[in-house]
Amino acid sequence: MSKALEKHYEWGGKIEVISRVKVDSSDALSLAYTPGVADACREIVSDPDKDYLLTRRANLVAVITDGTAVLGLGDIGPRAGMPVMEGKCCIFKELGGVDAFPICVNTGDSDEFVSVVSAISCSFGGINLEDIAAPRCFDIEARLKKLCDIPVFHDDQHGTAAVVLAAVINSLRLTGRRRETVRVVINGAGSAGIAIGKMLFAYGITDIVMCDREGVLVPGRNCMNPVQEELAKKVNPRGVTGLLSDAMRGADIFIGVSAGNTVTQDMVRSMAADPVVFAMANPVPEIMPEDAKKAGARVVGSGRSDCENQINNALMFPGLFRGALDVRASDINDDMLIAAAGAVASLVSDSELREDYVIPKVFDPRVGKAVASAAAEAARRCGIARV
Amino acid sequence: MSKALEKHYEWGGKIEVISRVKVDSSDALSLAYTPGVADACREIVSDPDKDYLLTRRANLVAVITDGTAVLGLGDIGPRAGMPVMEGKCCIFKELGGVDAFPICVNTGDSDEFVSVVSAISCSFGGINLEDIAAPRCFDIEARLKKLCDIPVFHDDQHGTAAVVLAAVINSLRLTGRRRETVRVVINGAGSAGIAIGKMLFAYGITDIVMCDREGVLVPGRNCMNPVQEELAKKVNPRGVTGLLSDAMRGADIFIGVSAGNTVTQDMVRSMAADPVVFAMANPVPEIMPEDAKKAGARVVGSGRSDCENQINNALMFPGLFRGALDVRASDINDDMLIAAAGAVASLVSDSELREDYVIPKVFDPRVGKAVASAAAEAARRCGIARV
Repeated sequence: MSKALEKHYEWGGKIEVISRVKVDSSDALSLAYTPGVADACREIVSDPDKDYLLTRRANLVAVITDGTAVLGLGDIGPRAGMPVMEGKCCIFKELGGVDAFPICVNTGDSDEFVSVVSAISCSFGGINLEDIAAPRCFDIEARLKKLCDIPVFHDDQHGTAAVVLAAVINSLRLTGRRRETVRVVINGAGSAGIAIGKMLFAYGITDIVMCDREGVLVPGRNCMNPVQEELAKKVNPRGVTGLLSDAMRGADIFIGVSAGNTVTQDMVRSMAADPVVFAMANPVPEIMPEDAKKAGARVVGSGRSDCENQINNALMFPGLFRGALDVRASDINDDMLIAAAGAVASLVSDSELREDYVIPKVFDPRVGKAVASAAAEAARRCGIARV
Repeated sequence: MSKALEKHYEWGGKIEVISRVKVDSSDALSLAYTPGVADACREIVSDPDKDYLLTRRANLVAVITDGTAVLGLGDIGPRAGMPVMEGKCCIFKELGGVDAFPICVNTGDSDEFVSVVSAISCSFGGINLEDIAAPRCFDIEARLKKLCDIPVFHDDQHGTAAVVLAAVINSLRLTGRRRETVRVVINGAGSAGIAIGKMLFAYGITDIVMCDREGVLVPGRNCMNPVQEELAKKVNPRGVTGLLSDAMRGADIFIGVSAGNTVTQDMVRSMAADPVVFAMANPVPEIMPEDAKKAGARVVGSGRSDCENQINNALMFPGLFRGALDVRASDINDDMLIAAAGAVASLVSDSELREDYVIPKVFDPRVGKAVASAAAEAARRCGIARV
């Protein structure tokens, strides 16, 4: 038995619900429960938003999945997805001070999933969607954003996109490139790849070549969903076509959110001078960091905690929700994500910025606060902060 | 501002979700989250019931409402119902060691409510339905019991019924009556009244006269729902008809779960010798305990914490779920409820049993354990325990 499995048996669940109120006497009971609690109810009846002050809502996020795309394990179902959701909740609490509660929804039907999440959303201050397969995740998120007046955030998309943007910003700084001219290849056009493409585009990078197993995404190509089609129309101004190897020739930055061992040393050698390689497939990267280095990559990053430049969503989601909850934002939008990415990038000073340090460590205590305050400020600027 | 409201503002939510795992290093993260967590997921894929060991499920109950019948406040909606749900969760934790999480579902449609609760039930070890209006609560509970393989328990029905049964058992002991011949009147034919009627009948009391605002429930009478109709056919062997005042004439035990001030001293005087009056309407009882005493009631109980014989669900639900979770029961059934009621009644010894002490205090530390072990044992006996 692995140590992780052993630990899971020992923990017996990684989250716990506790009472913030000592209920040990009739007097205490009559304040926290009947009859006193009726006063809190009446207060919310007369002003519904008082639930943010009188209940836990203001600090509470639901971490919700249907179990269709759990980690690298795929469609393992809601029950088997729970350990991941619980782990996510631990990170929310430990790094963002956010109360996060895991809910696995047993349905394969997008309509039902949307109506379940929408119906319970009034119990929470935010919704973190997790590990939902593409392309259904796009539709589910878009519909829930319309139905709910609280932030609905698919972390596999936007958390990933924001942390990648932070790493890209610092790679541009380090290698003296500009967003207007940098050439980026993204391999993987699922939830993460699409979101990264959109995020970089929103940031002002236009020369993006999106690839999947079949090669470059070109409008009208076979095997593309509407979301891929739409993004393919906006990016790739030079009209690159062909396979991933074609796309990588002359590229400045490679971003992989695809599958292990899909990039060769020769492909890295075909990139522009001083190439940047973020190979984030889990658990096996598109190319092992040391191989990318050998092939001449100047900056290398991956999802692995045992390698330099770990590009980890945990840098983002706890602080993003912390900031959104603090100002009761109605959404977590692109402006907030770009601000958060900039804030994370700025934590690496000019004197610290190096090939092996383009992104802060996950446990850098400054990260959560920097992300939260950047996100909150951006929300205010956009007019979506409610307190 | 009342003290209770002040406290609610001060608390800022009565429950909290915490992490049971310290996530403060890459090593810790790699055990609780990726990549280590994948081992726990795979273990559940190969044996789904392992989620009871590898996640919090085994100790986790959802407290779910649609906000249609909150306390005495009525249909105040899901958001305004949350303070009550949170209070319930505090009691679950403090008195039963059960992690309980409050969820308010924003729908007025029974079908949607059922599909929401059913879809998320795989995240929990039990479902406590709360404050759902009659008669929809009967149908909702019945359908959820069929759809879910975990206990689904409507506390307003069965928690109330079990604690009333405990008080009835000790009243029979004290006044030397027998279940086969005792005459009981129940006023109020909503969720609690119906459940009490069914529970007493299951216990072996058949001479029960059910009343509502219109008087005695008689098969075929106007303004009766199917659940009331069904119960009316089984009880009332003497065919009593008329108003509440007619029903109470000669009755041994009055049980009120109706509205304040619906019983007069004259009505109590018309009961049999040594009458028992449980006037549980909240916050104002059907008759004030001191008035019932003046009119000759030998035993008086109410829902009030400032009066003798407080008949409070909190004596039951924490221990019932504790016991059900401990043996992973698939249901909380009548056998378990009757066993729990008997266990609570037995905590009052023959030498302690008195007019003003027919039921233990809510904070008697023996109660939770006695209820849990009686319920668990009954579940084993019925063959619905799974560990």
